[in-house]
Amino acid sequence: MTDVRVIEVKQSVFADNDKKAAALRADLKQRGTFLLNLMSSPGAGKTTTLLRTLEALRDELNIAIMEADIDSDVDARTLIDAGAQSIQLHTGGMCHLDALMTNQGLQELFGTQSNELDLVILENVGNLVCPAEFDTGASANAMILSVPEGHDKPLKYPLMFSVCDVVLINKMDALPIFDFDLEQARKNILMRNPHAEIIPICAKTGEGIDVWATWLKKRVALWKAQV
Amino acid sequence: MTDVRVIEVKQSVFADNDKKAAALRADLKQRGTFLLNLMSSPGAGKTTTLLRTLEALRDELNIAIMEADIDSDVDARTLIDAGAQSIQLHTGGMCHLDALMTNQGLQELFGTQSNELDLVILENVGNLVCPAEFDTGASANAMILSVPEGHDKPLKYPLMFSVCDVVLINKMDALPIFDFDLEQARKNILMRNPHAEIIPICAKTGEGIDVWATWLKKRVALWKAQV
Repeated sequence: MTDVRVIEVKQSVFADNDKKAAALRADLKQRGTFLLNLMSSPGAGKTTTLLRTLEALRDELNIAIMEADIDSDVDARTLIDAGAQSIQLHTGGMCHLDALMTNQGLQELFGTQSNELDLVILENVGNLVCPAEFDTGASANAMILSVPEGHDKPLKYPLMFSVCDVVLINKMDALPIFDFDLEQARKNILMRNPHAEIIPICAKTGEGIDVWATWLKKRVALWKAQV
Repeated sequence: MTDVRVIEVKQSVFADNDKKAAALRADLKQRGTFLLNLMSSPGAGKTTTLLRTLEALRDELNIAIMEADIDSDVDARTLIDAGAQSIQLHTGGMCHLDALMTNQGLQELFGTQSNELDLVILENVGNLVCPAEFDTGASANAMILSVPEGHDKPLKYPLMFSVCDVVLINKMDALPIFDFDLEQARKNILMRNPHAEIIPICAKTGEGIDVWATWLKKRVALWKAQV
């Protein structure tokens, strides 16, 4: 009797992606380009946070942004109108980006650059599940939890919080009208990831952006120093 | 030379699910049980909306709720503490529920019931992408778009809005502090789905819940009348 061949598709997909992600990370290190993978639920404020981040760091770093969405180009347009270097990636219905898709976007960016890019930020698809499963090759993972979403999200979406180096708690100006317990949010995040940096911000008013920009600038400098 | 066999896995997965969903829908029709599939981003207010819906309809209908999450049982506990019949489904890391998983939950519910269930509400995983791709066998699909998420979401997550019979716009009390254009939201939703019912609500204050409960009660009555 012939043995049935069992192919673990999910594992092979992830293992293959992990290899591509590691190769991409090594290439980015050689170039001295730091890639930040920014994730969140839909509407948590990724694009507004990026606009503030650009304001804070554009004089010191050469920055470009890749906007990933299933459809539309509203976010890339917003960023370009604000003077940013930005491209839109359409995922063809996919709920996440993998290392191959990320690399495609990066090659497009590098092709149009005369100078070295210090920092590329990938705004991932708004989703707390699938993007956490795929290593994009990023130098660091960041996520935004917004106050209106509630402090229980780390309980429901464990992987997202465990893969992130930094969690920005956005829309702090909305704290008075929502049942959001900041201390409980901190505890829930640290339960999933004891090493997570937690930074409360308000992208609309600019609150906390200096702390976030300082964190990011240090990480970029460290990345470049290790080349 | 032997032809290479190409297997369209994605299509076969969907086709198989569609068959299971159709069979489940037919079974529910026989029983006179209406299944509502409720979807949204994480933190848009599904559980609070369900608490209000129960308050409005529990005297008239026998209702049970299935809470789907990757992890935690906070939502099922909240509902049980409020006196609801509720079970928690864990998806094992999956970003959505399919018809088979939904049926497993339903059989568990039916097993504990002495009376017929008029309405079962499935609170799907918080995600605007994957749940829209899988027919759960529901009698109707509903989604919640919350004001803090912004009115551009139908542009970015087209499938979710096109598969929903009704869109609840929640957290209307937060309108003064967010840049959310209600008319533009309506236009964006209707562009994806001209037949969508759109109901502004505030689950926290109860605003609009009467309109929503009336819509749902009519749909349940219609479903039962067609048996």
